[in-house]
Amino acid sequence: MMHISKAQLKDESRIRRLNIVNSIPGVKPVNLIGSISEEGQLNLAVFSSVIHLGSNPALIGFILRPSGEVRRHTHENIMSTGEYTINALPSVFARQGHYTSAKFDAEVSEFDAVGLTPEFLDGCKAPFLKESRMKYSLRFCEEMPIQRNGTAMVIGEVMDIYVDDAAVSENGFIDLSVLDCAGISGLNSYYRLEKIADFPYARPGEFAKE
Amino acid sequence: MMHISKAQLKDESRIRRLNIVNSIPGVKPVNLIGSISEEGQLNLAVFSSVIHLGSNPALIGFILRPSGEVRRHTHENIMSTGEYTINALPSVFARQGHYTSAKFDAEVSEFDAVGLTPEFLDGCKAPFLKESRMKYSLRFCEEMPIQRNGTAMVIGEVMDIYVDDAAVSENGFIDLSVLDCAGISGLNSYYRLEKIADFPYARPGEFAKE
Repeated sequence: MMHISKAQLKDESRIRRLNIVNSIPGVKPVNLIGSISEEGQLNLAVFSSVIHLGSNPALIGFILRPSGEVRRHTHENIMSTGEYTINALPSVFARQGHYTSAKFDAEVSEFDAVGLTPEFLDGCKAPFLKESRMKYSLRFCEEMPIQRNGTAMVIGEVMDIYVDDAAVSENGFIDLSVLDCAGISGLNSYYRLEKIADFPYARPGEFAKE
Repeated sequence: MMHISKAQLKDESRIRRLNIVNSIPGVKPVNLIGSISEEGQLNLAVFSSVIHLGSNPALIGFILRPSGEVRRHTHENIMSTGEYTINALPSVFARQGHYTSAKFDAEVSEFDAVGLTPEFLDGCKAPFLKESRMKYSLRFCEEMPIQRNGTAMVIGEVMDIYVDDAAVSENGFIDLSVLDCAGISGLNSYYRLEKIADFPYARPGEFAKE
């Protein structure tokens, strides 16, 4: 086992520290956030920090890096229009999705730059990703600053959900391997998912050790 | 495509709404949080909401449901000792990890109940999961209430990291498929990960559309 103490982590190179600490939470979802500026400029950016916060109301958060760093177009657009979309990235489009993280100028649509397709659904101003088989629109709720390191959590309420029927069970389980949803670890390692098991709601006494 | 509007989602059964909204963020990591009470009672509980917040200092968060609901042993232990561990769950132990979510009494160690092994490393009071090949100890920093729905984000600073050497590259990339790390969607669908690609840091102009 490699063992790294807090003091040793501090002495690592910046890139090695970034890679290690971004990897240890485990696999993260790969989502592309679609947004539009007040002038109508489309934006698409990859995020690995999308997280479920509650189901009723349906609240989804994502972590925004300190202002001045990357992703500012997405943030500006959400602040000015109040709407955005989150689109699960299929693993066959991992390369295209990853390249939306390049620092393109504001007047460049990442859809065009990487060859993905915008789609407009049911009156939402922000673009969806046509290639995604699980996507939803959100209305901005609030931005919670995380004082300790200057990041923030952006919280939105889910408005309209679109999922390929083939992946949805009667009880609302969604099979991510049917949808070919990608996972990511660290900043740039992409994974395909293979479903191995569904377990029932766990109750004490129902578990038999092998 | 299945389309569910906000109004329709509200009218769904509770279980179907829970499953859908827990699934749409995409794949989540499966981590077991180890903790210990002041009286020395071990606790182990599965969490799918562990998230990277920053690398320097190394900050990791997880979402805690409203007080009065589940997971209170983990929360109480963290509050009283200030220490806990996060342990990536190998997919071969998915069943055991899932069953730590059953509501065992406070005097039951989930390690014993499901047949997993506690391990104590380098002076950390909280137990690690011996079967995990990627794990770390944390010191509690703060609890950020999410007013909107009564949940909270618990933030900790990473103290000691342990990762199987076989999975760590020179630059600090950690290959989660080598470690057999599990993923989860919704509340009970488990996945194995297959690494498909590493992409370099993305710069405009370096991307060639097919």
